[in-house]
Amino acid sequence: MAHAACPLCTGVGGTLVFQGRKFRLIRAEEAGFPAFYRLVWTDHVAEFSDLDEADRSLCMAAVNVVERALREHLQPTKINLATLGNVVPHLHWHVIARFDWDTHFPSPVWAAALRGLELTHLQEVIVRLAPAEQTMALGLASMGKQG
Amino acid sequence: MAHAACPLCTGVGGTLVFQGRKFRLIRAEEAGFPAFYRLVWTDHVAEFSDLDEADRSLCMAAVNVVERALREHLQPTKINLATLGNVVPHLHWHVIARFDWDTHFPSPVWAAALRGLELTHLQEVIVRLAPAEQTMALGLASMGKQG
Repeated sequence: MAHAACPLCTGVGGTLVFQGRKFRLIRAEEAGFPAFYRLVWTDHVAEFSDLDEADRSLCMAAVNVVERALREHLQPTKINLATLGNVVPHLHWHVIARFDWDTHFPSPVWAAALRGLELTHLQEVIVRLAPAEQTMALGLASMGKQG
Repeated sequence: MAHAACPLCTGVGGTLVFQGRKFRLIRAEEAGFPAFYRLVWTDHVAEFSDLDEADRSLCMAAVNVVERALREHLQPTKINLATLGNVVPHLHWHVIARFDWDTHFPSPVWAAALRGLELTHLQEVIVRLAPAEQTMALGLASMGKQG
């Protein structure tokens, strides 16, 4: 199911937070967005609707674990979820904690920046990532369905 | 559960395709993106994780119906799914058929345009929307869970 030309088949794609059989969670390296995660499906499928119902449920349950951990630990202004895959058509869900002080808020992270980096605020988020990721990894491991 | 200041509580938000008890489907009016739909949750909740597991399943099953109808009728290059809500924090899922000729592809629809409108291609999509929406409405009606 792996494609030699696909960067999410051949590489991790970021900092690994959790590795399961059917999916992994990585922290993306997106400047200005420290709490930007990607839930990457292991098999190379392009669309969410390529998954069967059980796998769609599993996938969204995993997204929900990440979202809840972000809310609990970071109290973001908003959570943003998206699966686009126009450039890398290998199923991955963006799970992003957004803050009213971030460079793009309330625009999407893919739009133009509206202001500069708030380094003090960024630092406050960054120090909370380790405990947030521990909650994510424990939650994903306890799902017990990805074998 | 409705908020007087919320445009998705006080208005439909687009062209109504299907109205259920727990959600509705609307076609958005986004220039250059004729096959841009929004699955709007009826109750005013901000985050996907505000829903319980049964409602999250129902919501994503509905998104899946819309996605599959778009794939079947329009053969898009890619489907894009997102719930952002930074401006209107009332749960709604964007379900967007993307084409390699559209103004922004492969960028997200929220990024800068990369090219002009392809009117001939747009017209080919627009004439297929009615049968696609019939498939969506029938599929959503037959889910039988939103009462």
